[in-house]
Amino acid sequence: MAATVTIQSGATWQEVAADRQKHRDATLAIVEPPLPDTLPDIPLHTIPIAKAILSVEEIQITESTVEDLVPGLAKGEISSVKVVAAFLRRAVLAQKATNCITEVLSPQALERAKYLDEYLAKNGKPAGPLHGIPISVKEHVGMKDLDHNAGFVGWVGALAPADAHILQILWKAGAVFYARTTQPQCLMHLETSSNLYGVTTNPFNTTLTPGGSSGGEGALVGFRGSCLGIGTDIGGSIRSPAGNCGVYGMKPTSGRLPIGGLKACGAGEEQIVPSIGPLSTSLEGCKLFIKTIIDSKPWYREPSLLPFPWKEEEFFKSKRLKIAVLWDDGVVKPQPPVTRALKQVVEKLKAKSNVEVVEWKPYKHDLAWEIIANLYFCDGGAEQSAAIATSNEQWLPLSDHILKNKYVENHSIASLYQATIRREVYRMEYANLWNSTATSTGPNGEPEGMVDVILGPVGPGCAPKIGTAKWWGYTSQWNLLDYPGLVFPVDKVDTSKDAAKETHTPRNELDKENWDFWEQNGAEGYKDAPLSLQLIGRRYEDEKIVQALEIIQQETGLPFVTYT
Amino acid sequence: MAATVTIQSGATWQEVAADRQKHRDATLAIVEPPLPDTLPDIPLHTIPIAKAILSVEEIQITESTVEDLVPGLAKGEISSVKVVAAFLRRAVLAQKATNCITEVLSPQALERAKYLDEYLAKNGKPAGPLHGIPISVKEHVGMKDLDHNAGFVGWVGALAPADAHILQILWKAGAVFYARTTQPQCLMHLETSSNLYGVTTNPFNTTLTPGGSSGGEGALVGFRGSCLGIGTDIGGSIRSPAGNCGVYGMKPTSGRLPIGGLKACGAGEEQIVPSIGPLSTSLEGCKLFIKTIIDSKPWYREPSLLPFPWKEEEFFKSKRLKIAVLWDDGVVKPQPPVTRALKQVVEKLKAKSNVEVVEWKPYKHDLAWEIIANLYFCDGGAEQSAAIATSNEQWLPLSDHILKNKYVENHSIASLYQATIRREVYRMEYANLWNSTATSTGPNGEPEGMVDVILGPVGPGCAPKIGTAKWWGYTSQWNLLDYPGLVFPVDKVDTSKDAAKETHTPRNELDKENWDFWEQNGAEGYKDAPLSLQLIGRRYEDEKIVQALEIIQQETGLPFVTYT
Repeated sequence: MAATVTIQSGATWQEVAADRQKHRDATLAIVEPPLPDTLPDIPLHTIPIAKAILSVEEIQITESTVEDLVPGLAKGEISSVKVVAAFLRRAVLAQKATNCITEVLSPQALERAKYLDEYLAKNGKPAGPLHGIPISVKEHVGMKDLDHNAGFVGWVGALAPADAHILQILWKAGAVFYARTTQPQCLMHLETSSNLYGVTTNPFNTTLTPGGSSGGEGALVGFRGSCLGIGTDIGGSIRSPAGNCGVYGMKPTSGRLPIGGLKACGAGEEQIVPSIGPLSTSLEGCKLFIKTIIDSKPWYREPSLLPFPWKEEEFFKSKRLKIAVLWDDGVVKPQPPVTRALKQVVEKLKAKSNVEVVEWKPYKHDLAWEIIANLYFCDGGAEQSAAIATSNEQWLPLSDHILKNKYVENHSIASLYQATIRREVYRMEYANLWNSTATSTGPNGEPEGMVDVILGPVGPGCAPKIGTAKWWGYTSQWNLLDYPGLVFPVDKVDTSKDAAKETHTPRNELDKENWDFWEQNGAEGYKDAPLSLQLIGRRYEDEKIVQALEIIQQETGLPFVTYT
Repeated sequence: MAATVTIQSGATWQEVAADRQKHRDATLAIVEPPLPDTLPDIPLHTIPIAKAILSVEEIQITESTVEDLVPGLAKGEISSVKVVAAFLRRAVLAQKATNCITEVLSPQALERAKYLDEYLAKNGKPAGPLHGIPISVKEHVGMKDLDHNAGFVGWVGALAPADAHILQILWKAGAVFYARTTQPQCLMHLETSSNLYGVTTNPFNTTLTPGGSSGGEGALVGFRGSCLGIGTDIGGSIRSPAGNCGVYGMKPTSGRLPIGGLKACGAGEEQIVPSIGPLSTSLEGCKLFIKTIIDSKPWYREPSLLPFPWKEEEFFKSKRLKIAVLWDDGVVKPQPPVTRALKQVVEKLKAKSNVEVVEWKPYKHDLAWEIIANLYFCDGGAEQSAAIATSNEQWLPLSDHILKNKYVENHSIASLYQATIRREVYRMEYANLWNSTATSTGPNGEPEGMVDVILGPVGPGCAPKIGTAKWWGYTSQWNLLDYPGLVFPVDKVDTSKDAAKETHTPRNELDKENWDFWEQNGAEGYKDAPLSLQLIGRRYEDEKIVQALEIIQQETGLPFVTYT
């Protein structure tokens, strides 16, 4: 049902926001068995809330991974109704702890779960590879007849005309959609604040951001209110929240997973194409998600997609995995705990005979930022400005930061072409950089023995203090190049291990600011923040980075800490 | 060496053109043994000229296909010098007959051929899969230090800084580049006329156009002055000349073959992406060309390309080939000989048990033309207009036709996005149309048992009278959809078979004009014009259309006539 309190119906933006929150709370209130209305004392590290309130069985279910749940659901050893109900309850707590939910879909999800349980009982086989699995969904992804506002107050009241293509596929595969999650104003922050729902916080330390723009997903999956969620990424929006919240997140190469049915400004823009992808408590969860979608041959229905099957060949059966380490992008130096986490992993890998570790020398990542920041809003941000103006809602500081930065330009066709050429030239140069790691030449002149993956930070620090996530370079770099990226949990900020002081001479404003944050807050200020890393592959080598991470995890025993 | 007579040096456009022609003639004059300066009487059908002047051995060589020549060259049974020399001489005759050449590269090509002969003698193996094969190249494709003018007088004097990527690959594969061929003003005609070189004519009937924009290639390959040439196609520019000149031509899906190093207006434009591809006297020639390039993994060097290997799986080993016949696009009805050729093929195919023939109902091909014509020149043609204005050369009528048609728009970013969305919606609708031919649903919800290929005309007639090629829809349709297209020879216009009159009530201006041309000129006016057809596959199904044509040729004995 369409929201009736909207800008179009004459409401103020404050009234619209209040009504959306009221709607959200109403959906939370009907989750059974009911949960305490408010939690008296929300600790900085919120996970214990769930432990204190949920039943042992609910905790056990919600702390299971996708691959833990799939076989039992497929055999009927556990009912989808029970699984969904447990995740619904934990999602309600996640909302109370971190403000990550826009609505839960309790009746619909339980009805769907019941249908699937009955289907299994009747047919003796699961409905699909994701039979009975609950999936949480960023609000960006359209659900038929539900609000689709792209984080703008002025767009509330518009309903998605149909389920997004990806949801249709997952539905056929047996999934259950049970929760929708927050996104920032205009969808272009690496945090998650909007005038509709306020600030989403990090479940491991509520003074920190969960990241964004899929920050609702990050917080929910980090809190274990979801084992599998859907995010989108055009500058880091899957990887930043996954990294900040200690979960796995994958941004596939564009054109591999269907993006039909998303809503944001910039429809028709093709200079920088967004990716959709999973956030999950396991790598296997990400992989099953992607493979299930690709197996449905989505390119037949969405012809902008590439008809690659999910490659099952083993890339590292008869060759070593060659990893290049990116310690620092040369623009903003990572804060010490990030480097510590990276060092830990690299040292373990160096001792392995099936892995080769080399250094990656970054190539003009500052220029890369100029190019992509210039291409995000080719109309100079006019569309976003108009969307904000519709409701007279205030510009949030991080909207200002990205939409009004010095590289944004109101392009003519001629300048757009020039900017596109700049992007292509940079892509070519980066490809040649990668080619230059070859150790031999193949029979047809192709480079061989190259670096397989780049291992590096997800951002210039762990989860930033709220309002301070400004340097996109560690993630947007790979959107500009359209390389796939996979984020995975490694460690946490530790007040003893991360206590030592380190000096650094700032290179620029952003670098200074980033280092100062660490100096000022120290390990205590970022206590318990997950430390994550990112694996990058060449364009379309999505399968390779998944296999590489499987090897890395196997060889190093990652992650080094637990998160629940 | 750069041209010295240029607009920039103060010459008039007429002087620049005269100097370019002088340069061309000088390159022709040094081909050995020398050919008659002028041919006294050029017949309408020019092929006999070659027969009358060349030696038996030269005729035999130049009428060989790529697959005829490759094994002998690889084993040293015939020298590359001999092969290249024969094609050089026939190319000179092709120029005299049809005006298709901008320069021949006699010394460089013979030196290269000599090197390859010596390489083989010394190493006992060929330099690559195209060892010693002469390849002709449309001027659009850059050759290091040679003029690169995109058909504009004002651009003469600019040299290509390097060989185009595709030439570098072919070079490594052992090819010999020996001739550069004509292109029309601004590269956007389905004919080949420029103020630099004048009009290129059709070798089978010089009152007709060879098509365009790769019309120099069409005429040269049709004349057998080349067995393999390189063209480019954004609206039909490979397929129209191939079809008009009775040879094979393939426009692969965009992103499969490298386009780095081409020169034209619109660099940085991505709404409609050009393809590069082969024109050849054989299907096998086209296939070897494409496969050789893809085998070199060009995506490593040109990251806009897709990393698909050339698929070797046999698509029709255990299933019938399902062909849908497009008789008429619903906008401009094909002239009777085209329909006769299509009928002949369809009737033969219907009798075959391994082929299923159904009808294809075209979907809004008029709208498709509106969309693509609007997206060709997103700046309203400003770049082309400026390039023409540089020299004060005259606008050719077919430049007017395409650049000043009613769908061209000087886009803002906002209207460009809207136009791009229109393109995507149309592509989606066409994909769904194709999906609707499915006979079942696969295990993951994907459509199965669909039409494999569409068989239809290459244009609304055979080769048009010079100056009359106006309806692009039969080829541009598949550029809009980015579907691969493969053109192949079937028959020729025959003054007895095509004598019958047929009535048709015109649907629109263009349809009337097209039909009137046939009424007015009759079979006599188009005498000996090749009749060709086009096979279309879904996006990225390039391999499938090649295999489909192999089956079609096998089953029907195509072509039904000889062309030499």
